Amino acid sequence: MNDAGHNSSAQLKSIVERIERLDTDIKELRDDQKDIYAEAKGNGYDVKVLRKVVAIRKQDPQARAEQETILETYMHQLGMLG
Amino acid sequence: MNDAGHNSSAQLKSIVERIERLDTDIKELRDDQKDIYAEAKGNGYDVKVLRKVVAIRKQDPQARAEQETILETYMHQLGMLG
Amino acid sequence: MNDAGHNSSAQLKSIVERIERLDTDIKELRDDQKDIYAEAKGNGYDVKVLRKVVAIRKQDPQARAEQETILETYMHQLGMLG
Amino acid sequence: MNDAGHNSSAQLKSIVERIERLDTDIKELRDDQKDIYAEAKGNGYDVKVLRKVVAIRKQDPQARAEQETILETYMHQLGMLG
Repeated sequence: MNDAGHNSSAQLKSIVERIERLDTDIKELRDDQKDIYAEAKGNGYDVKVLRKVVAIRKQDPQARAEQETILETYMHQLGMLG
Repeated sequence: MNDAGHNSSAQLKSIVERIERLDTDIKELRDDQKDIYAEAKGNGYDVKVLRKVVAIRKQDPQARAEQETILETYMHQLGMLG
Repeated sequence: MNDAGHNSSAQLKSIVERIERLDTDIKELRDDQKDIYAEAKGNGYDVKVLRKVVAIRKQDPQARAEQETILETYMHQLGMLG
Repeated sequence: MNDAGHNSSAQLKSIVERIERLDTDIKELRDDQKDIYAEAKGNGYDVKVLRKVVAIRKQDPQARAEQETILETYMHQLGMLG
């Protein structure tokens, strides 16, 4: 590893501050998401389920369908499906 | 809870798509951070330590100093300071 | 906070070592679980789904059924159910 | 993947229940750790720092010393060391 000492403080400072600016931007976007979920909750939506829908929409539909089929098979075998 | 059924699909769709757009924006900013860390690594910086510096800069300096003092005391008592 | 210095090194050592022994025991049990999942995989089971079944069995059945109903409602409204 | 259906319910049940028993055992050990930390807190120890000590003791001393040296270098360059 090239000894950090040789890299100037200015370079290090620039790296860290660019990371920090992006952290600030990310936090703002996260806060925006929180606001949307709070708004949805106020409109009667179940936030936990909303988050699950968002997560499901990121999955490959076919892969998800396969997993659901296997899950149903296992739950049936374990008497979990009433 | 107001039955989601009464809320129109359009409202639900709008909520989910706004969340997803923000997720996309956040992912782009995360990717930018990865690029910065990769660039820093290329310049000889230790990425693990860089991340620690960024984390430390988010802490309250006085609270951190107190924790470091206690840590040193415990490590000394446990013979961890050579 | 009572200054740690006044507490003897022996007391601190005992606390830390008891925690560490429990960490060792927990790791062994985790390894046992990994072995069971590996065995199940060898017998044709889908480990990801198995983990989901174990997680579902920890949930309150009624609460889970309610969430599933709401999820289905939202997914239907979003045209995700084909 | 061997169709789970061909594997008997008994086999699946045994796998899941063995996992669950281990989960129960792990939870008990975790609770024991919580008790130790609570006891330590009652004796004036800083639990957050105690956890850090336990984590540090799991690290390779030499690798940790190297990281600490680099960290100090970066913090010095960033004027974080007063």
